[in-house]
Amino acid sequence: MRNIKMTIQYDGSRYRGWQKQKDLELTIQSKIENVLSKMTGEEVQVVGCGRTDSGVHAENYIANFHTHSIMSIEAMLDYLYEYLPEDIVVKSMKDTGERFHARYNVKSKTYIYRINNNSFRDVFNRRYVYHLNEKLNLDDMIKASEVLIGTHDFQSFTSLKSNTKPTVRTINYINITENNGMIEIEVNGNSFLLNMVRIITGTLLEVGKGNLKPLDVEKILNEKKRSEAGPIAPAKGLCLKIVNY
Amino acid sequence: MRNIKMTIQYDGSRYRGWQKQKDLELTIQSKIENVLSKMTGEEVQVVGCGRTDSGVHAENYIANFHTHSIMSIEAMLDYLYEYLPEDIVVKSMKDTGERFHARYNVKSKTYIYRINNNSFRDVFNRRYVYHLNEKLNLDDMIKASEVLIGTHDFQSFTSLKSNTKPTVRTINYINITENNGMIEIEVNGNSFLLNMVRIITGTLLEVGKGNLKPLDVEKILNEKKRSEAGPIAPAKGLCLKIVNY
Repeated sequence: MRNIKMTIQYDGSRYRGWQKQKDLELTIQSKIENVLSKMTGEEVQVVGCGRTDSGVHAENYIANFHTHSIMSIEAMLDYLYEYLPEDIVVKSMKDTGERFHARYNVKSKTYIYRINNNSFRDVFNRRYVYHLNEKLNLDDMIKASEVLIGTHDFQSFTSLKSNTKPTVRTINYINITENNGMIEIEVNGNSFLLNMVRIITGTLLEVGKGNLKPLDVEKILNEKKRSEAGPIAPAKGLCLKIVNY
Repeated sequence: MRNIKMTIQYDGSRYRGWQKQKDLELTIQSKIENVLSKMTGEEVQVVGCGRTDSGVHAENYIANFHTHSIMSIEAMLDYLYEYLPEDIVVKSMKDTGERFHARYNVKSKTYIYRINNNSFRDVFNRRYVYHLNEKLNLDDMIKASEVLIGTHDFQSFTSLKSNTKPTVRTINYINITENNGMIEIEVNGNSFLLNMVRIITGTLLEVGKGNLKPLDVEKILNEKKRSEAGPIAPAKGLCLKIVNY
């Protein structure tokens, strides 16, 4: 049986996230499974590299599926390109080892959160960037981000309600850059809790606005309570950039 | 009476172009006039730097209007930002000399036509870029573009039907560049005929595909017949970049 790895780009604006839901919710996974099932005549199950929130985008989402189909990769790509909606593109596919699993094998992921910190929104990227017209102190945000690097219990930085699931994660780096008022927060970690990047971003923005001090973030981390951290930043500014295996 | 100059950015996707139409057609001019009229309590008429086709975008469209309002520029900008739809932004405004006229005073305009020449569309710019999956010969396109530089009768390159209006125009330069499969055709001229940049682009694309030779463009220019030139390139790839006064 073939095991095919896919790299997928999507504009998440109108989707309820990656993950298939009960009922008729519009999700990226269900769109792709439907097209692959029609293409192969099999009931294809796609394994994604992880969930993404409703409204979050991806530049290089990785997924895999098993099939008995003998179609060429090129023909599959053409078929998907033709039948997927215009906000989802399977950019590349390749036959991979039968044991490859898009979720279990993830080593790390890189997310980018984009903020337009100019006076006015830019109409051309308005669906992919969070517009915030309030001067931010980037130096303080960078200092605050350094507190989060490493292996910590990120319970304060997730919307996850359960107390039984492990909430320790490792953040390898956070890069915060600014170019003409466009701020990018790049976060790389081994895996992420529900809403974690958006809550980290929301907390760093509170630091940038001066509502929190950089060292307050250490206290927030130690408190292990969601209510201590900043608000969740809007989904549309977040994009899954790279998944490493 | 004040004369106020505005710089406007818009995503033209859902509009019937800049210019106000009879009836209830959705146009950028009518949207802005409505908001300015409510803001000032006067019946404001906005003078634009020229028409743009249905579906064409602008990064820095210039317009002006007269008003007796004593509102500050900052308050006006805030009002417009609040009440215009999210695909139109007035980026800046300033009081200007009473004789300034956004259309009559134009010295030159620069348009950009964007083509994605990779295998697949990029979902994030799909509304602003024409996707063409057919290898293009850029060198030939550049040679062909050189034929068009200077002052010529561009009758072959307009959808304008009238034989009585002058069709001589001056193109100052055409720059064709490529970066990771994204091709930009930048055209600067003193003024443009109806659909001129899109028909020039459509013709250059025929050269790029090998359906025309670079020197055929000279023949097309000399024939002065629309039917000789290439097809009109899709509106969504075109963007008015700069207007010089």
